[in-house]
Amino acid sequence: MIDLYTANTFNGQRVSIMLEEIGLEYSAHRVDLSKGEQHLADFLKLNPSARIPVLVDNDSGTSAPLVLTQSVAILQYLAEKSQLLLPESLAERARVYEWMHFHAIDIGSTIFSAFYLQQRIQPTQQQAADQLRQRIHELYHFFDQQLAKHEFLAGEHYSIADITALPAVISQQDKLSSYPNLMRRLQQLNQRPTVQRGMTVLDRGLSNAN
Amino acid sequence: MIDLYTANTFNGQRVSIMLEEIGLEYSAHRVDLSKGEQHLADFLKLNPSARIPVLVDNDSGTSAPLVLTQSVAILQYLAEKSQLLLPESLAERARVYEWMHFHAIDIGSTIFSAFYLQQRIQPTQQQAADQLRQRIHELYHFFDQQLAKHEFLAGEHYSIADITALPAVISQQDKLSSYPNLMRRLQQLNQRPTVQRGMTVLDRGLSNAN
Repeated sequence: MIDLYTANTFNGQRVSIMLEEIGLEYSAHRVDLSKGEQHLADFLKLNPSARIPVLVDNDSGTSAPLVLTQSVAILQYLAEKSQLLLPESLAERARVYEWMHFHAIDIGSTIFSAFYLQQRIQPTQQQAADQLRQRIHELYHFFDQQLAKHEFLAGEHYSIADITALPAVISQQDKLSSYPNLMRRLQQLNQRPTVQRGMTVLDRGLSNAN
Repeated sequence: MIDLYTANTFNGQRVSIMLEEIGLEYSAHRVDLSKGEQHLADFLKLNPSARIPVLVDNDSGTSAPLVLTQSVAILQYLAEKSQLLLPESLAERARVYEWMHFHAIDIGSTIFSAFYLQQRIQPTQQQAADQLRQRIHELYHFFDQQLAKHEFLAGEHYSIADITALPAVISQQDKLSSYPNLMRRLQQLNQRPTVQRGMTVLDRGLSNAN
């Protein structure tokens, strides 16, 4: 049984999509970031750096429950645990890692830096945030090119690379219309019931999400 | 035989340290970013998004050489290929992924965003860059806390999590003196001949680095 402490952000939604895809039973618990619940003592015991998502796996094969942070680390862990959404051959797995990190490091974290400059500091740095967002838009060009040649980001199979990118792409789709291959793939993935359930888990009540 | 296209940046040095640690024979090729060599046609064939490092593994078990970008993806690939610097148990590997991504996503990419705002755009955004660097400094607190409790970032064994963090920590060590556990671990790792060779591969001539 798995507990997921999460919020409706890209990082949180990645993990709930993954859990739905692999069909592991889990309970989703909302951490209300607008109320600062990530700074409450009980949450800081799970993640001292006060960020969602946190996965608690009570059936990890270790003596104590496994408490894990960092959304991309959680995806990798769940893929290895379930032996799903990660290819068997090393060369194909490497391609998954490449596209997973391209999104998580170059795009995902730049989105966060823009948010940080615009929302979390005083004085806000609107112009700098806009310039970072321009860079994000330029990087999506390479995702579009990859999806012109391949069915999925890492080749011909759906993987944790696609799941890493999906929530951010969904949220920005009105800005990505000049990337037809990315939009086509997005629309197809977005129709999966698993993706829809993962994106909306917190809107459906908090316990026993599966 | 492996070819590494690289430069003296955190992302490049991570990979050359890793290659030295696992003892794979490789040739390092300098891509001079100050001359814009990452935009030359031959390099763009390796990485259309014009960034180092690029690893070309001519012995990957695939029909064509494996061309791989993204430094953290390369570390993961090399760890799996060599079966070194990554624990056998899934729960312990998950801890490696967590700290690897904490550095690569939250710290490494914020360093890049600060650099980007300060160096790559007009008008430069010095104040925003400084504010991002303040956030980086705050996040290193959690690395220091982890190293107060454990020998290495992911527990009791040296792993790709430490290698992910190492080049950036080396370059910033004059700003990290308030983090004694991080400094102690840094100084110990910095004495490894493998780390020293990996950090300076491009200063020692370009061919047959090992």
